[in-house]
Amino acid sequence: MTIDPAAALAQAMIGRPGSRYRVPTPALVLDEAVLDANIAAMAERVRGRAALRPHAKTHKSAWIARKQIAHGAVGVCCAKLGEVEALSAAGVRGVLLTSPLADTTAPARLCEVARADPDLLCVVDHPDPATALAAEAARRDLRISVLIDVDVGLMRTGVASPDQAVALAEHIARYPSLTLAGVQGYGGHWQHIAGYPARREAVRAGMLRLTAVVTALRAAGHRVELVTGGGTGTVGADLELGVLTELQPGSYVFMDVQYGDALADDADGAFGTSLWVSSQVVSANAAPIVTVDAGLKAFATEGPTPRPASGRFAGSAYAFFGDEHGAVSRPPGTEVRLGERIELVTPHCDPTVDRYDSYHVVSGDTVTAIIAIDAARASR
Amino acid sequence: MTIDPAAALAQAMIGRPGSRYRVPTPALVLDEAVLDANIAAMAERVRGRAALRPHAKTHKSAWIARKQIAHGAVGVCCAKLGEVEALSAAGVRGVLLTSPLADTTAPARLCEVARADPDLLCVVDHPDPATALAAEAARRDLRISVLIDVDVGLMRTGVASPDQAVALAEHIARYPSLTLAGVQGYGGHWQHIAGYPARREAVRAGMLRLTAVVTALRAAGHRVELVTGGGTGTVGADLELGVLTELQPGSYVFMDVQYGDALADDADGAFGTSLWVSSQVVSANAAPIVTVDAGLKAFATEGPTPRPASGRFAGSAYAFFGDEHGAVSRPPGTEVRLGERIELVTPHCDPTVDRYDSYHVVSGDTVTAIIAIDAARASR
Repeated sequence: MTIDPAAALAQAMIGRPGSRYRVPTPALVLDEAVLDANIAAMAERVRGRAALRPHAKTHKSAWIARKQIAHGAVGVCCAKLGEVEALSAAGVRGVLLTSPLADTTAPARLCEVARADPDLLCVVDHPDPATALAAEAARRDLRISVLIDVDVGLMRTGVASPDQAVALAEHIARYPSLTLAGVQGYGGHWQHIAGYPARREAVRAGMLRLTAVVTALRAAGHRVELVTGGGTGTVGADLELGVLTELQPGSYVFMDVQYGDALADDADGAFGTSLWVSSQVVSANAAPIVTVDAGLKAFATEGPTPRPASGRFAGSAYAFFGDEHGAVSRPPGTEVRLGERIELVTPHCDPTVDRYDSYHVVSGDTVTAIIAIDAARASR
Repeated sequence: MTIDPAAALAQAMIGRPGSRYRVPTPALVLDEAVLDANIAAMAERVRGRAALRPHAKTHKSAWIARKQIAHGAVGVCCAKLGEVEALSAAGVRGVLLTSPLADTTAPARLCEVARADPDLLCVVDHPDPATALAAEAARRDLRISVLIDVDVGLMRTGVASPDQAVALAEHIARYPSLTLAGVQGYGGHWQHIAGYPARREAVRAGMLRLTAVVTALRAAGHRVELVTGGGTGTVGADLELGVLTELQPGSYVFMDVQYGDALADDADGAFGTSLWVSSQVVSANAAPIVTVDAGLKAFATEGPTPRPASGRFAGSAYAFFGDEHGAVSRPPGTEVRLGERIELVTPHCDPTVDRYDSYHVVSGDTVTAIIAIDAARASR
């Protein structure tokens, strides 16, 4: 058992008015009302036009996954096998593992999850992992549903052509322990294109590639029931184009600086910020800035900088100030006291969340619950 | 108890030849022979010229702290109170907390650690936290040693002038439960200046500021025994200038791309790389690159990119490819097989280590131990 006095202190504050601004920092603060509104809004937006299987790599939490499923989601997506295992252990069902796997131990681990979750789905983009998975599933008398992952222009994963897809489908069809359930085509590079028309145009080109694969597979006699992909930034285009039968958005539950900026002017961005990193002022001797206790170790750092969002700091700028600290510009004309809390919108929510162990769920100024991030750093 | 099949698989591989290239990935791989050589080399370099209290915010591990202390270190530094608590609980003594604290719960937590570690040191840069700490220590009949943190040009923390330092020293002297043990002056902005002469010149200007504070404190009748600061990049200059009586380098145990590049041509850089993130190829359908399973969530991302370091990938380039993946350029003329391991030098070691729970300690191609990172993410 780890000794964590900070966690114990936070736990003891649950339910106390003002606790939001007293928990030890840096801490993830999550406004449940905004979270619930985001989950409801996405469910409403997609209803009747596509199935929704939100990506849980954003939140890594069974508690949030259950909220999404209660609003009609058919399950959740995971990016890593470790996430699948953690959420499955927490009772989440209908999981789609969206990354192809190569590790020789992956088939046994996947089959272990499939015993509890018969609706488990995974993707392949090469015959070898399919062969290994088929052998393991046959040994356990299981039948595993697989999707062919299709490269829609990102070059990250996926088969590169319709011919390669058909060859892989034929390979899969040889194994009674595998069922070809459909295809996946995800364009991560489209998600943050600013402006709906430009984003839709990029998605359209990618969906032509995906359609060519689906057509070739069907022409070769294969069943393609599920066509899955998409993210928070492309829901509008995905629904308009109608190629995907199932969508995988993740970040809409929290929103972040990246999505807030890119999608500010259109319907894809019509979600509220529900997540912040709470920091506190630990030094205030310099004239232009104050120093807070959240730095490079407290955020994802590959994108924009965190954005101060609390009261009089809402107009301030934040700059990284080493591993453990940040500099926040002083609001004019007021004293800043040591210990004052400053909440910051996360620059990129997924890898920021991954650095924490729990959400401090708030209603107004009160912490109402502390919820474990079940699959934090379950990256293997 | 978290269900973590990947950790169990890795555990079962300990001692098996070739296990270094079979553990589930992404994983931190640590070469113990190089680590030990780095620890011995720094101890040798500093011996007789300054005391060494290495910064444990880099490794966050009691196992490595004990190695450093066995080589003559007087203790270790920590950046956060949570780190202090975690390493103290693991038996490490002589801890210096290098960041000033403001949280109202900090004095009680510090005093709790001081009961086990009478040599605990902490820093202050404002009277209010000193008052709170003095009251808590008096209540518990403890005497706590404090250093005055001095801003040597970074503007991050520390008193801004000799006058402010003297006023704070007088404030501290009022409390029998506090002992003024000295001063701290750390210049994080000097550590990566390329070239020894330029780095020494920057350090010299900062040490003049620190010396002015020490002189003023002594003139006002205060004892200044300890003068602490410095990092891996400034050891040479710190020893040459002779202002610091105690040094706090951290990253020399691992080295990383940042330090490797900045210090390549001088004695400060004479340490070996002991730490890598091991990844594996999960997709190889694209002609120019292969995709590995270590992306934005597997590294610190604010600096340079991770650098491939294994065999035929040693000349390859790495690019981030989303949250979970990286792109590694293909070495010419060879087939790449799925599951092949690619080890990468960490871009910035401290915040990379903070994302993991354990070191996979290796000797040659064999994992010899898996060591917990006791204070990982103990950031509060």
